[in-house]
Formats: sequence, C-alpha cells, structure tokens
Amino acid sequence: MEINVVNALTYEDFVKLFGNVVEKCPLISAAIWSHRPFKDLADLEAHVTEFIDSLPDSGKEGILRCHPDLAGRDLQSGTLTRESQEEQSQAGMNTLDSAEGLQMYRLNSEYKERFGFPFVICARLNNKADIVRQLSERLKNDRGPERERAIEEVKKICSLRLRNIVLSDIQTQTNK
Amino acid sequence: MEINVVNALTYEDFVKLFGNVVEKCPLISAAIWSHRPFKDLADLEAHVTEFIDSLPDSGKEGILRCHPDLAGRDLQSGTLTRESQEEQSQAGMNTLDSAEGLQMYRLNSEYKERFGFPFVICARLNNKADIVRQLSERLKNDRGPERERAIEEVKKICSLRLRNIVLSDIQTQTNK
Repeated sequence: MEINVVNALTYEDFVKLFGNVVEKCPLISAAIWSHRPFKDLADLEAHVTEFIDSLPDSGKEGILRCHPDLAGRDLQSGTLTRESQEEQSQAGMNTLDSAEGLQMYRLNSEYKERFGFPFVICARLNNKADIVRQLSERLKNDRGPERERAIEEVKKICSLRLRNIVLSDIQTQTNK
Repeated sequence: MEINVVNALTYEDFVKLFGNVVEKCPLISAAIWSHRPFKDLADLEAHVTEFIDSLPDSGKEGILRCHPDLAGRDLQSGTLTRESQEEQSQAGMNTLDSAEGLQMYRLNSEYKERFGFPFVICARLNNKADIVRQLSERLKNDRGPERERAIEEVKKICSLRLRNIVLSDIQTQTNK
C-alpha cells in the first residue's frame, strides 16, 4: 500500500484498517489521522509513538489495561482480537501444558496484583521460554519503570502490526 | 452502586462496566482507574473530563471519530453499540421518513467533509427537530470552536451514561 493511498483514506476507512494497531485503542489511530499527510510508514508510526508519549501516566496504564492476559481466559474462549490471537499462537501460548498454563496464570495474577495492569510483551519477538523468563524478571521492577518498559512493548507490537497491514496489502496487489 | 463498590472493582471489571461511557474509547475508563479511590460519582466523572481535556487536539478529534454517524449506516444495519442504539432511538433517529433520512445523510456528509470528524450531539437531550437545527447551525462554525463544542457533547453523553450505569444498578439492588 503506497503512502498516498493511506493519505487518501477517509477517517472511517483509516480507523477500520489501522484501528487495532494499538490493542483495543481505536482512539489512537483516529487521533493520528489528524496528522495526514504522512511522509511514509515510518512517519505514520512516529505519530503513534508521539501520541502515546504525550499521554499522562494514567493514559499509558489505560493502554496497557486494554490488553488481554497472555495465555488467559480470552485465548481459551476464543474472544481475543484477531491480531492478539495470531501473536499469542505464534509464541506458543495456545499449546501450554497444564503445568505451564498454571505457571502463566500465577505469574500473570502476581503481576496484575503488583502493577494494576496486565503483563504486555511483543509475543512475535519472543518464544514461550523468553516470555516466562521476562515475566518473572519484570515482576521485580518498580511500577514507574515497568510502565515504561511495557509501553515499549506496546510500540513494538504496534510497529509489527502496521508493517503487517501494509505488507499483506502489497502481497494482495502482487497476486492480482 | 455505592462508590466503595466501584472502588473495589478490578480494572477488568471496571472497564467491562464503564468502558463505553465515552463511545468506543475503553482507553479512557481504563486510564482513570489509576485514580481510585473516587470520592463519589461526580469525582469519577471529573477524572474523565480532566483526562479528555488533557488530550492534544488530535486526541479530541480521535474521540469524535470513534462516534458513529447519527441516523447513519450503523443504525440501519444494527451495528451500533447498545448505548448509541438506545440514545439514537430515543431521539427518533430510527423513525425518519425518507426525506428526513436524506436530509440527515446530506448534512452529516457536509459536516464530515468540513471538519474531518462526525457530528456528535447528546441525543438524549435533543429531539429530531433540535438535532437537525443544531447540525445546520454548527456547520457554520470554524474547526477549533466546533471541536470544543462537540467535546462538550461527548461529556454530556458520558455523564448520562455514567448515571445510567449507577442508577440501573440501584434499581437492580432495590428489586432484590
């Protein structure tokens, strides 16, 4: 998808296409539509990052709270967003044995109890073992640094989702 | 619902209950959970207002863009949120005759073309005639003042949705 195609989208089509690049926060893509025209994909991504950074701490925590648990109830019941479903599956979160499942449940619960938001990590860039290790380590952080750490992961997820939208579109066009 | 019950909610239950007090912006209620404990409903509402006011102009426009058209495609196809469905129906938006429907379509289109966000008005506080009149009048505003005007309507909608959640809960408890 050429950037001039993106720039020509109505806000309705833009939000339909990019609305979930930050999980369950269509407000964010709806906001950055105001900054068209974008020079390129990197410019579009920079506006998302800038918007997130402009939020007060409560807003950053709000973004995190819009994320599902890793290997949680939504994965089991099939109520994840399409993007999360693919990402969690790719990291093996849908094939945990019962001991691994229990461990994830306990660590997630401890994390949410400690920080008041769920553990967020870019599942596409980590395997099962990495995720458990990082969850255990990040549990030791203080709240402020951990909020910032988690927001960095939100940005990585967003970056890959943006690329995915644009690349799959190129694929579609090539196959025509 | 007593405020201590609200204050005792996990962020997950809080977002489930209050997530749509600003249309399709669960980020906002998820953010203000950070400010517990709330003194009372007015305090909770004040935090929503403060959060909205803290957003850059693009963020305010983002909130507006998460709203459906009045008497638009989502109303016809039944894909509005439950809250919007009730509000638009109460204002008679679901019983427009074909001339009224065409008029709303034209005015909405003109408004979106001019401002880059949809016309938002607290439908519970206005009837069909008021809505058409205000839509025609607000079309003459400049973009900045109109953005602020529309955000005031978002706050009225939010206030009534908050009250509705709390009051219907009191009703439920009384009926027990």
